Amino acid sequence: MKKVGVAILGLGVVGGGTYKTLTEHREFYKQIHGIDIAVESVLERNVERALSLGIEKSKITQSIDDVCANSEVNIVVEVLGGIEPAKTFVLAALNSGKSVVTSNKELYCKYGHELEKAAKLNGCGLYYEATCVGGVPIIRTLLDNLQGNKINSLMGIINGTTNYILTKMTDCGVSYNEALKEAQSLGYAEANPTADVEGFDAVYKLSILSSISFHTKVPYTKIHREGITKIDAVDLQYGKRLGYVLKLLAIGKNTADGIEVRVHPAFIKSAHPLAGVNDSYNAVYISGDCVENVMLYGRGAGALPTASAIVGDVIYCATHNNFNYSTFENTENADPATKFVTDFKSAYYIRLKAQDKAGVLSKVTSVLSKHNISVAQVIQENGRSDGAVPIILVTHETYENNVQNAVAEINSDGGFASVSAVIRVC
Amino acid sequence: MKKVGVAILGLGVVGGGTYKTLTEHREFYKQIHGIDIAVESVLERNVERALSLGIEKSKITQSIDDVCANSEVNIVVEVLGGIEPAKTFVLAALNSGKSVVTSNKELYCKYGHELEKAAKLNGCGLYYEATCVGGVPIIRTLLDNLQGNKINSLMGIINGTTNYILTKMTDCGVSYNEALKEAQSLGYAEANPTADVEGFDAVYKLSILSSISFHTKVPYTKIHREGITKIDAVDLQYGKRLGYVLKLLAIGKNTADGIEVRVHPAFIKSAHPLAGVNDSYNAVYISGDCVENVMLYGRGAGALPTASAIVGDVIYCATHNNFNYSTFENTENADPATKFVTDFKSAYYIRLKAQDKAGVLSKVTSVLSKHNISVAQVIQENGRSDGAVPIILVTHETYENNVQNAVAEINSDGGFASVSAVIRVC
Repeated sequence: MKKVGVAILGLGVVGGGTYKTLTEHREFYKQIHGIDIAVESVLERNVERALSLGIEKSKITQSIDDVCANSEVNIVVEVLGGIEPAKTFVLAALNSGKSVVTSNKELYCKYGHELEKAAKLNGCGLYYEATCVGGVPIIRTLLDNLQGNKINSLMGIINGTTNYILTKMTDCGVSYNEALKEAQSLGYAEANPTADVEGFDAVYKLSILSSISFHTKVPYTKIHREGITKIDAVDLQYGKRLGYVLKLLAIGKNTADGIEVRVHPAFIKSAHPLAGVNDSYNAVYISGDCVENVMLYGRGAGALPTASAIVGDVIYCATHNNFNYSTFENTENADPATKFVTDFKSAYYIRLKAQDKAGVLSKVTSVLSKHNISVAQVIQENGRSDGAVPIILVTHETYENNVQNAVAEINSDGGFASVSAVIRVC
Repeated sequence: MKKVGVAILGLGVVGGGTYKTLTEHREFYKQIHGIDIAVESVLERNVERALSLGIEKSKITQSIDDVCANSEVNIVVEVLGGIEPAKTFVLAALNSGKSVVTSNKELYCKYGHELEKAAKLNGCGLYYEATCVGGVPIIRTLLDNLQGNKINSLMGIINGTTNYILTKMTDCGVSYNEALKEAQSLGYAEANPTADVEGFDAVYKLSILSSISFHTKVPYTKIHREGITKIDAVDLQYGKRLGYVLKLLAIGKNTADGIEVRVHPAFIKSAHPLAGVNDSYNAVYISGDCVENVMLYGRGAGALPTASAIVGDVIYCATHNNFNYSTFENTENADPATKFVTDFKSAYYIRLKAQDKAGVLSKVTSVLSKHNISVAQVIQENGRSDGAVPIILVTHETYENNVQNAVAEINSDGGFASVSAVIRVC
């Protein structure tokens, strides 16, 4: 029986889940896949943590050189996260002829080209299914299932923390801060939640997914990014009345005008398959020119769902002789021939606080009209005790810049109304 | 550039879609995948049809020997459907050293073992993503993504025709016959709809999917099968009131008592991700011991969505040197060591027509109780002019045989009530 030795770099949540999965399923994999996969080495500073998982002391190291020199190790699983020392370790592993499986989205997003180059040079495999959307099989689906399609667009809920927070705000009417606190107490959000709630995590994943989908390097710096920290719960309630659900969406489109990539909160129709993706679940909705629409749904994070993706890559790597590389090994930056759309098209939800006077709605719509924005839906509420009237408008599709200009004009023009919220509508 | 020659056996809906996709995307595949995929041969009796697609006369044949002898052909795409001549043709192709990509679920379900054996013997690839659920990447997900999991269960809406009919019945309150006629007029159902509406199509797919998922041959003859022809629209309305949606479900479970496989109409909770899968869309919901739950959603049929799966297999086959085979090449029948569950567990929706007399509900529940069935929900309507009262019960989980016995006893016992419908609840 073929023996395969694995090293795990980092025994955090995902590393621990990977160790557990590989060891508990060892007999199962022998029986089903005909390979004996053994964890031969673990790189972990916290020796106690490693020992508490039942790992033999002789297999625990703090030195990447030990791992690279270990002839029993064929595949190195990197689950450290962050750029360094992960980058140095992964390059060392590849340069010592070991295949690498990684869950490190930031590393693959920013330095995937260097890793690909080293993998190709050394004839090693480089697998990264776990970088995007945990246990959801999105990378292999794009590479090995939908590769006959021209992918027109992908739209994803690819961050579990923000989806949990927005689901709580929608269902329970609580504020962003209350929902964040609950997410933190349940371990869905970190003490410093910035990477999630400001959309950085989603941006890294979208960079990887749109590069694969559109066959051109989409650097994360090209992605328009807005988080959810400024979302007011009242807009989720108005959205509900209008038939929409609010999600933090990662959107990639390959249009005639160029590549359009953005991460921001957006309303989607409540009948859309993504609208039912709640709590910490994730999903990606892909449109291809043959397949029409496909959606992949599941756990986007967590020890065992992410371990599922990692172990899937480990077994795949162990049972396939030839490695297929992405085409990005020489492309740190975008191809100069690739155009990126900056002034994208969308429909918009706009909430205003208007003076309770005759002609205010007319003034608002006249500014919008001047900027080529036409209105599809309106809610005007009764005036409140402070003399302010909430007006909610949903526009037809228009350009982002038109809306930004119209909002600036309304806000600066004598105070007949001020814009409280602008949310894109998909 | 590597040249790959393809032969297409059969230019029906899917064959035509495959031809169109391969020819229209030829330059795209050269550019992106670095291979030149050319359709070198087409086996089609209807020469006019082939010519109308723009295929050169010299490439059209009616003889599988021509295809097998054609040294330009590396990959044979079989999209004829049915057992013969497809089986003979596929075996001939494999035995002449050509890899095969097939969409033929009935053939792969019934004779997959023979095809696998021939492929292995000849060192050829055998790909069958398109046999199950059209463009939805279910086969490769099970083989190459979730293969580190023990799959506990899968639950699918894997037939588009029946899902279209049930969606119409649910949304518009029309009868089965009306919905069927509409499906036929739109091309979603065939003139003879038996294979779809009686569940045979779903049974073939479930046999393939559960064999892969549970790593043991699950012959289609082991699958409990019920179609949708006896569904009364009134039950969909009662179901809606109780919070359920009716779907034709294909269910596979790997339980401590054995493999449980069944295709039948079933109510699912309206909040379940499968409940929102409407019209001719399909989806499969998979539970694995690491990944938790994953759902794959998309078009389960149609020329181009199915071509997406076929062309994905063609490109995969053309870009990978080593073929990985299933383990079923010697298993026509179930492994004698594999146990199959026949008396499965479920909750049940039961609609009765009862006499409008005191004590009838008590009599009904007493029979149920005698058979170890306890009731979770009840709707009793006002008596009708004919003196019959509709009673709707939803039970807690119990055994199928208990329910069948209780129903038989109620129906035979003096006429105080008769059972009009029994529908399983998932």
